[in-house]
Amino acid sequence: MKPIEPRTLKGFRDYLPQEQIARSRMMEKIKRVFELYGFEPLETPALEYEDVLAGKYGDEGEQLMYRFKDHGNRDVAMRYDLTVPLARVAAQHKNDLARPFKRYQIAPVWRAENTQKGRLREFYQCDADIAGAPLGISDAECIAVIEAAMKDLGIKKFVIKVNNRKILNAIMLTAKVPPEKIIHGIRAIDKIEKNGAKAVAEELEKKLGMEKHEAEGLIRLASTKVPDVGALKTFMSKYILRQPQGKEGFDELNKVFSALKEFGVSHAEIDLSLARGLDYYTSTIFETILTENMESRRFGSVAGGGRYDHLLRLFTGQDIPAIGVSIGLDRLFSAMQDAGLAEKSGTVKVLILNMDKNLETDYLNILSQLRAAGINSEFYYESADMKKQFSYAESKHIPYAVLFGANEKKKNEITVRDLKTRKQKSLKMRELIRGLI
Amino acid sequence: MKPIEPRTLKGFRDYLPQEQIARSRMMEKIKRVFELYGFEPLETPALEYEDVLAGKYGDEGEQLMYRFKDHGNRDVAMRYDLTVPLARVAAQHKNDLARPFKRYQIAPVWRAENTQKGRLREFYQCDADIAGAPLGISDAECIAVIEAAMKDLGIKKFVIKVNNRKILNAIMLTAKVPPEKIIHGIRAIDKIEKNGAKAVAEELEKKLGMEKHEAEGLIRLASTKVPDVGALKTFMSKYILRQPQGKEGFDELNKVFSALKEFGVSHAEIDLSLARGLDYYTSTIFETILTENMESRRFGSVAGGGRYDHLLRLFTGQDIPAIGVSIGLDRLFSAMQDAGLAEKSGTVKVLILNMDKNLETDYLNILSQLRAAGINSEFYYESADMKKQFSYAESKHIPYAVLFGANEKKKNEITVRDLKTRKQKSLKMRELIRGLI
Repeated sequence: MKPIEPRTLKGFRDYLPQEQIARSRMMEKIKRVFELYGFEPLETPALEYEDVLAGKYGDEGEQLMYRFKDHGNRDVAMRYDLTVPLARVAAQHKNDLARPFKRYQIAPVWRAENTQKGRLREFYQCDADIAGAPLGISDAECIAVIEAAMKDLGIKKFVIKVNNRKILNAIMLTAKVPPEKIIHGIRAIDKIEKNGAKAVAEELEKKLGMEKHEAEGLIRLASTKVPDVGALKTFMSKYILRQPQGKEGFDELNKVFSALKEFGVSHAEIDLSLARGLDYYTSTIFETILTENMESRRFGSVAGGGRYDHLLRLFTGQDIPAIGVSIGLDRLFSAMQDAGLAEKSGTVKVLILNMDKNLETDYLNILSQLRAAGINSEFYYESADMKKQFSYAESKHIPYAVLFGANEKKKNEITVRDLKTRKQKSLKMRELIRGLI
Repeated sequence: MKPIEPRTLKGFRDYLPQEQIARSRMMEKIKRVFELYGFEPLETPALEYEDVLAGKYGDEGEQLMYRFKDHGNRDVAMRYDLTVPLARVAAQHKNDLARPFKRYQIAPVWRAENTQKGRLREFYQCDADIAGAPLGISDAECIAVIEAAMKDLGIKKFVIKVNNRKILNAIMLTAKVPPEKIIHGIRAIDKIEKNGAKAVAEELEKKLGMEKHEAEGLIRLASTKVPDVGALKTFMSKYILRQPQGKEGFDELNKVFSALKEFGVSHAEIDLSLARGLDYYTSTIFETILTENMESRRFGSVAGGGRYDHLLRLFTGQDIPAIGVSIGLDRLFSAMQDAGLAEKSGTVKVLILNMDKNLETDYLNILSQLRAAGINSEFYYESADMKKQFSYAESKHIPYAVLFGANEKKKNEITVRDLKTRKQKSLKMRELIRGLI
């Protein structure tokens, strides 16, 4: 019989142990930070009724969603993000949930992305959301979570850009963008960093019918650097405050930055050009850019989020204020690999070498004692030559080998070898365990 | 606009924090045991090419698999188990993997099961497999992993039934089952405990064309109680040893039980009627039944596995000996819930009560200090009445509340309340942290 060609689908990939160990440690660290901030775990299905997910992500989302008919001829779709399922859960289980509902979820989502840009079609999101929380402290917590996670992951150079959709709206209105076209203006402004001011100006002229000087004026406003809330206030009073939304947005951003200060967050800065693509944001928005080196910027935002006070209405029929943050695990993992921050290591601490077929009982006995002491260990199953056994240890990044032959047996000792320094010493079992724990 | 009805698909469910915390702790314990035994994590995609999965699980599997056409019109299928993807990975990445390849994977699989029997269509498997390992110690390790995991989960009463397909084959041949019908005989025998001897005898007569006395003879043989390897030897020499496969199977089982003894495994016993449904097993097989109470048996096997020395051939064109164990997380979780073994608890340790709007800065400051010390904590966002705040703490199983009012501020102290005993005391910040860590 001809073998089946072993292969993965485009945009899907395996994570072999070397990578998965590092990735799994990243997830544990992020989980730890979420729990530190009072978020609790939730799990939702990979498949949902199509109408639960459809119509929430804009045109692109509609195209990229995996949908099919299940065995009962139901229209189903694969999870596209973790926010919409959260909104569904908050509505469906509203009588069983604490309010505010602070939950986190770390899980894969599926999008049939264009793989030519190096995008994956299956990737993990690490989301923490608060449903039923008024603006202010909760917004700051979602931002503080990013800073805490980045620090725990060993990332030192990053910027969390923060903006407020109401300020953006006010800027749009000031620049004479018609109210019904604001969302298009926002989507255009979102691309200033990526495509440059010139391309964005052209898009504004073409899609919004703005005059060239109007488009340039809008870009100038949105690109104004405001290092802190004080500078923002000056900017607002000069240009924007006549728009009531501008005043509201400023007060909100001010509240958030006050709380950020109390939390000691030092990587957040105001960026008036930050827009975020998704339609459902209503107020606070933020994104995180790595600045380890110029190259790391190409990964785009590795963690972002915002406030979406109307999304839950789609399921509950009433507004429930909500805010959330999403850390893109796999994008972050790639960026960390590039920056040399994703450690390569194994999980096994000791390999017991198979040196003498007659001593198998002794090997299994040593193995059992090591495991009983909580030391990750294994025994090389076959009595192959030592070179092969050492190279196995090396390939799994195992730091120690146990050597036990007739000589050791006579002396009732065990020889342990540090596989990096190649130093070895003979010990009693008890000493060996004490040394390895 | 009419709200979308928030609902999940039949056979799919949410795990709210109360349950997910317990479930997530179970996964961590199982992961810890896998790593203790030298297994390293692997992650494979949720979607595979259909031909990678098809034809490996028998007729039932073919029917229950979720398949559809993706955006590129490819035939794809959702992960049905973790063993076939492992076989694919071992073939696809054979040059990058340590040999033997010891990997674990904890992940959901999808099967369009009949939900009337209470079965889920999405459930987690926790698998550990060894590809490229000779029979003996590796088989015993997979069984030892079950015992270690059960003990870590607090399950005391369980039996791991062990058998060998070659012994079963020899029993079949002894009872005059034609070689090409052995697999049907095995599937019938597999149901003795579930359906009773009478129903199985009828199935053997009907499907295999056996005489009534032949069928009864087969069931008698397969139901023989053999408390240990010694008793098995006697049984074999009396009835079965004339079949060469019987001798081979006995020697294999003997090897496995020798290693189990060295590992100190005490819950494994021989069960000649254990058959396992899947076709691909070739030798050692095992299953785990909870015996906490009679009720817990209805969950069936909560952990099982076996040796499949030919499965990898489908991808590589050559035999690679392999053995694996699969722990059914969600079945085990249900069983533990029934047995009262799934603890209900939260992850948050401290709730800072919102008692005085003017002290918000102080609250955020206390919160930051607790988090900096690694204590999971949160602040109640709104200055609601105390009853509401306490009931929030209760619903999240938060054990401590921090009370800080004008009085505490004056004294530069913090009052901490044990929400179970309702006792409270006033402390300096440093003492509070020391007491909570």
